[in-house]
Amino acid sequence: MIKAILFDVFGTVVDWRSGLVHGLERTFARAGLDADAPTLADAWHEQCLDSLRADGSSPVDGHALDASLARALSASLAKIGLDGQLTDSDTAALPQLWRKLPPWPDSVPGLKALKREYVIAPRNNGAVALMTWLAKHAGLPWDVILASEPAAPQKDPASAHVSFAAALGLAPDEVMMVSAHNRDLYPAREAGLKTAFFARPGEHGPAQTSDLEPSEPWDVVAFDLLDLARQMESAARY
Amino acid sequence: MIKAILFDVFGTVVDWRSGLVHGLERTFARAGLDADAPTLADAWHEQCLDSLRADGSSPVDGHALDASLARALSASLAKIGLDGQLTDSDTAALPQLWRKLPPWPDSVPGLKALKREYVIAPRNNGAVALMTWLAKHAGLPWDVILASEPAAPQKDPASAHVSFAAALGLAPDEVMMVSAHNRDLYPAREAGLKTAFFARPGEHGPAQTSDLEPSEPWDVVAFDLLDLARQMESAARY
Repeated sequence: MIKAILFDVFGTVVDWRSGLVHGLERTFARAGLDADAPTLADAWHEQCLDSLRADGSSPVDGHALDASLARALSASLAKIGLDGQLTDSDTAALPQLWRKLPPWPDSVPGLKALKREYVIAPRNNGAVALMTWLAKHAGLPWDVILASEPAAPQKDPASAHVSFAAALGLAPDEVMMVSAHNRDLYPAREAGLKTAFFARPGEHGPAQTSDLEPSEPWDVVAFDLLDLARQMESAARY
Repeated sequence: MIKAILFDVFGTVVDWRSGLVHGLERTFARAGLDADAPTLADAWHEQCLDSLRADGSSPVDGHALDASLARALSASLAKIGLDGQLTDSDTAALPQLWRKLPPWPDSVPGLKALKREYVIAPRNNGAVALMTWLAKHAGLPWDVILASEPAAPQKDPASAHVSFAAALGLAPDEVMMVSAHNRDLYPAREAGLKTAFFARPGEHGPAQTSDLEPSEPWDVVAFDLLDLARQMESAARY
């Protein structure tokens, strides 16, 4: 019987690409720059995921995270030939965009529905400060935001899932992992968690080719987060 | 400028004594035992605080916490001459009472009001699982439940406060600590946090003599949590 549901956040719950693209477009317009916001957004997102994974030495430190997002931005600007084109105050302000990413339209109603019967929590990489401000802005009604233990980044992803369940006093099979990325669900299944997938075909923009379908018969395959809530409500009843 | 507010939970936000006393009374009645529930509740509460502090080796493990609450109950039953008087299934079920402690009447409306402008979080001793289920039952609308780092119990309380602020990406003076226990506020002030106090004159029952008044001119002294919210709203406006 499932008691808690963990969610991948970037892509699955929030639309990071639209949030970053709109924010960058506003900054470019103010700076009078004719630059390609989607290209920078994609490069920055990729760099940030790398930084968040690599920078595991202080996973619960919000200052370190802000610095890491800023470094990733500088690297991305350099990569697309825009270094020196933005002011320092723009470069310092842009990492705040990550705190204000918009939820997909079904995310908040879906999470609220699931919260009635399950503990809901983000499965993040130790980005506690970012998760907190993001939830505040987007209205994500998490029951708990679990910080990774400092040791977790050295662990394999499967044993980190077991630690997450243990932190809630639950066995792995009482927890379900939800993601719009098939790759997130393999370590969850290996750790003994239940798995759920739905596609976010717009996550990477109009040309997306990845994660349009479930790659495995995961425990639950849904249309979106609201549909997942409907399926889980029926599951709890019978 | 304050951005986040941390709360002591047991006594300040929830009425642990009424919750434990009512639960124990129901169990004693079913068992046909003529025992003093308030005395057991007080002994158990004292033992639990000790266990939670001493058992710092695995602060984010919910299984360890449940075991610790059960051990504290056994010790308390022995202390008041009741060992062997309850069935094993009663003894196993009673630790669940801690998940269902009632909030004081002003707690939920006060927290909801503060949440509109501040990040609100419990300042717990690593009891993440308990905090999660407690919030779920009592409707405490925390923005985030921060797990202590495993290293934190070895730290002095003041530096643990600095870690909490850092986890949110905040400076110590952007965070306020709220407690109905004067002793909780000294290490918070030492760490550079703002401090707020209100009395819970019924926390320890009708004969309470401690913490009826602020022992220092803390930054904010309120009547209860709702009054604190009113004062903080005025503070934010000017």
